[in-house]
Amino acid sequence: MDLVEIVPSFEQYAFTFGGVPPLRRVTPGTALRLWSDDAFCGALRSVEDLSSEKVDLRYVNPQTGPFHVEGAEPGDTLALHFVAMEPARDWGASAAIPFFGGLTSTDRVATLQDPLPDTTWIYELDRARNTVTFVAGHSDFSVDLPVEPMLGTVGVAPPGGEARSSLVPERFGGNMDTPQMRAGTTCFLGVNVEGALFSVGDGHYRQGEGEACGTAVEGAMTTTVIVELIKGGGPAWPRLEDDTHWMTVGSSRPLEDAWRIGQVELVRWFGELYGLHAMDAYQLLSQITEVPIANVVDANYSAVVKARKSLLPTASAYGGLHAELRQRAAGLL
Amino acid sequence: MDLVEIVPSFEQYAFTFGGVPPLRRVTPGTALRLWSDDAFCGALRSVEDLSSEKVDLRYVNPQTGPFHVEGAEPGDTLALHFVAMEPARDWGASAAIPFFGGLTSTDRVATLQDPLPDTTWIYELDRARNTVTFVAGHSDFSVDLPVEPMLGTVGVAPPGGEARSSLVPERFGGNMDTPQMRAGTTCFLGVNVEGALFSVGDGHYRQGEGEACGTAVEGAMTTTVIVELIKGGGPAWPRLEDDTHWMTVGSSRPLEDAWRIGQVELVRWFGELYGLHAMDAYQLLSQITEVPIANVVDANYSAVVKARKSLLPTASAYGGLHAELRQRAAGLL
Amino acid sequence: MDLVEIVPSFEQYAFTFGGVPPLRRVTPGTALRLWSDDAFCGALRSVEDLSSEKVDLRYVNPQTGPFHVEGAEPGDTLALHFVAMEPARDWGASAAIPFFGGLTSTDRVATLQDPLPDTTWIYELDRARNTVTFVAGHSDFSVDLPVEPMLGTVGVAPPGGEARSSLVPERFGGNMDTPQMRAGTTCFLGVNVEGALFSVGDGHYRQGEGEACGTAVEGAMTTTVIVELIKGGGPAWPRLEDDTHWMTVGSSRPLEDAWRIGQVELVRWFGELYGLHAMDAYQLLSQITEVPIANVVDANYSAVVKARKSLLPTASAYGGLHAELRQRAAGLL
Amino acid sequence: MDLVEIVPSFEQYAFTFGGVPPLRRVTPGTALRLWSDDAFCGALRSVEDLSSEKVDLRYVNPQTGPFHVEGAEPGDTLALHFVAMEPARDWGASAAIPFFGGLTSTDRVATLQDPLPDTTWIYELDRARNTVTFVAGHSDFSVDLPVEPMLGTVGVAPPGGEARSSLVPERFGGNMDTPQMRAGTTCFLGVNVEGALFSVGDGHYRQGEGEACGTAVEGAMTTTVIVELIKGGGPAWPRLEDDTHWMTVGSSRPLEDAWRIGQVELVRWFGELYGLHAMDAYQLLSQITEVPIANVVDANYSAVVKARKSLLPTASAYGGLHAELRQRAAGLL
Repeated sequence: MDLVEIVPSFEQYAFTFGGVPPLRRVTPGTALRLWSDDAFCGALRSVEDLSSEKVDLRYVNPQTGPFHVEGAEPGDTLALHFVAMEPARDWGASAAIPFFGGLTSTDRVATLQDPLPDTTWIYELDRARNTVTFVAGHSDFSVDLPVEPMLGTVGVAPPGGEARSSLVPERFGGNMDTPQMRAGTTCFLGVNVEGALFSVGDGHYRQGEGEACGTAVEGAMTTTVIVELIKGGGPAWPRLEDDTHWMTVGSSRPLEDAWRIGQVELVRWFGELYGLHAMDAYQLLSQITEVPIANVVDANYSAVVKARKSLLPTASAYGGLHAELRQRAAGLL
Repeated sequence: MDLVEIVPSFEQYAFTFGGVPPLRRVTPGTALRLWSDDAFCGALRSVEDLSSEKVDLRYVNPQTGPFHVEGAEPGDTLALHFVAMEPARDWGASAAIPFFGGLTSTDRVATLQDPLPDTTWIYELDRARNTVTFVAGHSDFSVDLPVEPMLGTVGVAPPGGEARSSLVPERFGGNMDTPQMRAGTTCFLGVNVEGALFSVGDGHYRQGEGEACGTAVEGAMTTTVIVELIKGGGPAWPRLEDDTHWMTVGSSRPLEDAWRIGQVELVRWFGELYGLHAMDAYQLLSQITEVPIANVVDANYSAVVKARKSLLPTASAYGGLHAELRQRAAGLL
Repeated sequence: MDLVEIVPSFEQYAFTFGGVPPLRRVTPGTALRLWSDDAFCGALRSVEDLSSEKVDLRYVNPQTGPFHVEGAEPGDTLALHFVAMEPARDWGASAAIPFFGGLTSTDRVATLQDPLPDTTWIYELDRARNTVTFVAGHSDFSVDLPVEPMLGTVGVAPPGGEARSSLVPERFGGNMDTPQMRAGTTCFLGVNVEGALFSVGDGHYRQGEGEACGTAVEGAMTTTVIVELIKGGGPAWPRLEDDTHWMTVGSSRPLEDAWRIGQVELVRWFGELYGLHAMDAYQLLSQITEVPIANVVDANYSAVVKARKSLLPTASAYGGLHAELRQRAAGLL
Repeated sequence: MDLVEIVPSFEQYAFTFGGVPPLRRVTPGTALRLWSDDAFCGALRSVEDLSSEKVDLRYVNPQTGPFHVEGAEPGDTLALHFVAMEPARDWGASAAIPFFGGLTSTDRVATLQDPLPDTTWIYELDRARNTVTFVAGHSDFSVDLPVEPMLGTVGVAPPGGEARSSLVPERFGGNMDTPQMRAGTTCFLGVNVEGALFSVGDGHYRQGEGEACGTAVEGAMTTTVIVELIKGGGPAWPRLEDDTHWMTVGSSRPLEDAWRIGQVELVRWFGELYGLHAMDAYQLLSQITEVPIANVVDANYSAVVKARKSLLPTASAYGGLHAELRQRAAGLL
């Protein structure tokens, strides 16, 4: 299998889904090794670098891409299998950006209060121990935390001539900010425009569910991904599969609507996987779903709805593509 | 340790938190073995029993209690340690009650659409295999699922002379409907009235996160619980502790507000546990919390915010009471 | 017509809907002249009186009542026609209570920010000119505003044994905080318990729609109200009628759910008034409703949905009771 | 004053804000007379034309424009003064589009219920009487309603390279769907891109507040508008001024966030107009605002926050531009 390596220059970054010409054309079956910068374009490198001074909010969540997938047409299904995600720097950064995050008023949850103190935390990476270190800024405390790499942002171009900021999670994927987007996962996205035009970015060395303060341990990432195309069958909302779970991601506001979207999409998928009537899928999923919140901080909020495969009869989606991609991935490592 | 057994008669059920005289007075340190009826008061016993015909919505979520805890005063902390939860019948029931649940319009999410078909599912319990069996009603499908007993409803009387339906989750606990409320967990609740007046009910043989259709595998339950009292320190919102996690539960609408409440309460708790400044607790929790949705179907929605102890330095809450209760519980089993 | 005058003492105030014995029994047809204290129980009398120091939050929105209406049974309709509302003091007070209001974080919209500065504004009443004077506290500005008296709180006891704080708007009425609750309006409420047990309070000398900061120009009020009872026909949610509009009030969170409730209730009422199919009422109301937000600050948010009578064929509700009460009221003035 | 007349062909319609080259360049001070098609591109012409069959949802809310305003730069303020709006056809159409609207589940408020019956209503226009006639489709009822023309959609290109569907209301204006957007109103929008690139469309012969069913009396419109540019001072969110009110429009989800945005923007504007400290503006507006909901059906919900000028000291915004434009408009009529 080909392994195409891409390290974009700053001028090549995309900051929207849609509205940007492709960085490169790829054929289905290609494996890509993609370098992506961190959400701040590398602007926060010490605790003295404050987001209000160093981060240009027009240039956050830089995307590596978009990639034009040969043969992809509206209605098709793009499959992205994540083979590996490796921290590409020796530190990550996180920040409490003024009026951004979940436990502060924002431009949407608008109040008249003062912002929280603009604070930056730097997490040093210990590759040997595979940890990042949290060092408190306002207290005397530190702790090592396991590195669990993930991508905040994976998406395709939206339909209808829209172009959306790379801060937005939506039907087309985007800034879903879920820890489930990690090595070993296959992400299925509906194709909206010719060539799909997918991109990735916003690497996190780790992130809690909800991404409470609005930023994870943000870090440059090297991601190995296999690109596949399924003709037709494009799902309404992003679907994820790994070895243990069937998953969907809903994104909207308020958060209950994000959840509803994800839950309905999984009801729909269970209709396909098991031939279940919607009422029966509704009932069964009511008793088995795991529902971690992904983010409550982005332009839309995201919730993941998961069903554990080990509870269920064997089934396969998209012709068993995930299992096949796992095998192909093994050959790459 | 005393083990007081209570099997209430129908006339003894409470259907509110607050507004009801105590069923019994207990001293701190008492262990109770409590029988609770299912959410439907046992009205759904076959798939022919439809909720629209058999369930009197004035009498759902019957509570076993309330119990007056000797010495409990407003501002104190009630600790309830769940030693065991055992299914008290050989079947559980679930239903898609018209205009109730998460994937239907309701009296609050009011639309002009017709209701979903009123459907009841009965889950037979296999005690040997510790499973309940889902049998589809509108399709040809069945699957055995592990029994994972929990209580939907654990709460104390609210302050200010209020009395709230046992369908409501709130600051006082109540119908939080989280799978975390299981054997091995200690639940800490702020006391609002003299005697605390706690009650439990709404046993579930298992439940998915979100409780999508509005009802779990509802079943009568025998719960063994140790009651303890801590003078002062009453938390603003329910806190849970088990051997692996620190947890809080927020309940409100919209769902993001439930999440905010839980996340802020855990920031507060981390200040107590680790001496962390709120900004540092905010940051640290942003990278480590697990945030399962509890329910999106009750009068308020609930979200759980959890931090894994193994990621953190050793700490103890409420004088190490949870660990002590685990030991006392071991003596009871 | 009898005119019964009630001036409660502090000990007689009710602070909940439900859970309180009746202050007095009244027969349908009775006119009452009710004195009600302001929301702060008169605790804020100068700009130096700060709510954080002077207001006991367990004792706000004192209710005058409850009144047991002879013959009222669950399912009936209580009609309260407001004949007159007169300021009972020469000043009103308003405050930005810390962590209470619409443009601040609250215990529900929980953030980690500091509160807004606790500030009290006193509005002197000029009876001759019928104005109250706003005097800025942090700037050099004052302006006279017309007095437009209204009641924030009108409600009955809830069903199911609940007792709810007088800060709550709900299906049973309560703290709806709409300027529509003024002299000339008839309020129809569904009866939930024997005797209905209605109460009123929370007089406002004026209030903007939304009640943004959480408090209006709060003032003691003398309210003249005629009490009537209609057997049966209890509406699901509060309905209002005045000479110009049919109105409903929905209360919930998020605000769109409050709106949905009000809009559906008016669709239902238009079915009764004009024999319209729900789809036609939905369409017609889509083109004519006026929808002022009532409050975005209480335990539930409230929205009013109004249809202007002059746009519509003549119709009458509840046997033309509103028109009849207007006539009776004229005899009282 | 020049009066430039524009009647676009179908190929010239824009369906997004941003992402579209300008239809024409105009200099500040120009008056335009713009024909706009209805939201359905004229596809619904009888009650037999059902939206599910005739409406291509990729092509709704066709925009007339965008117009490149000479000299407009990011940070400037675009002023659009609406001189006249005249129905351009003799009928309007409204529809209950399946899974679209406020009293139905949607793709966001996702449930498993069936859609409401797809229904179209045609409103004949009587120019002499200036009315449109509602004729019930499922009942025997009709009523004439006054024509009150307005534009659902007025907006500029968004910042950051985004292109947004003409169904979206946002910071850049767009599909706000408020009846306040009518002849006599001046709309102030912050400029985000060189030339501003504004467009208009989605004429309504009348609309209720909330636009409950998702569509107004949709009609082709001829709009006369004067375009002006103010250097600098671009407001964060749309501001409107007419002879009687200062107004802002907030758009977001949930609806309380839309309200918060509008209320904060008016606090900010009152700081500029009257030199009021934010706390005093918060207080004053709490007592005087009128807050009609605009829509609860679009991609974002919108609320309007209004302050009546007659209650306030004289003030002028943007150098008294609105008054001046009123005079210029009088010369055009």
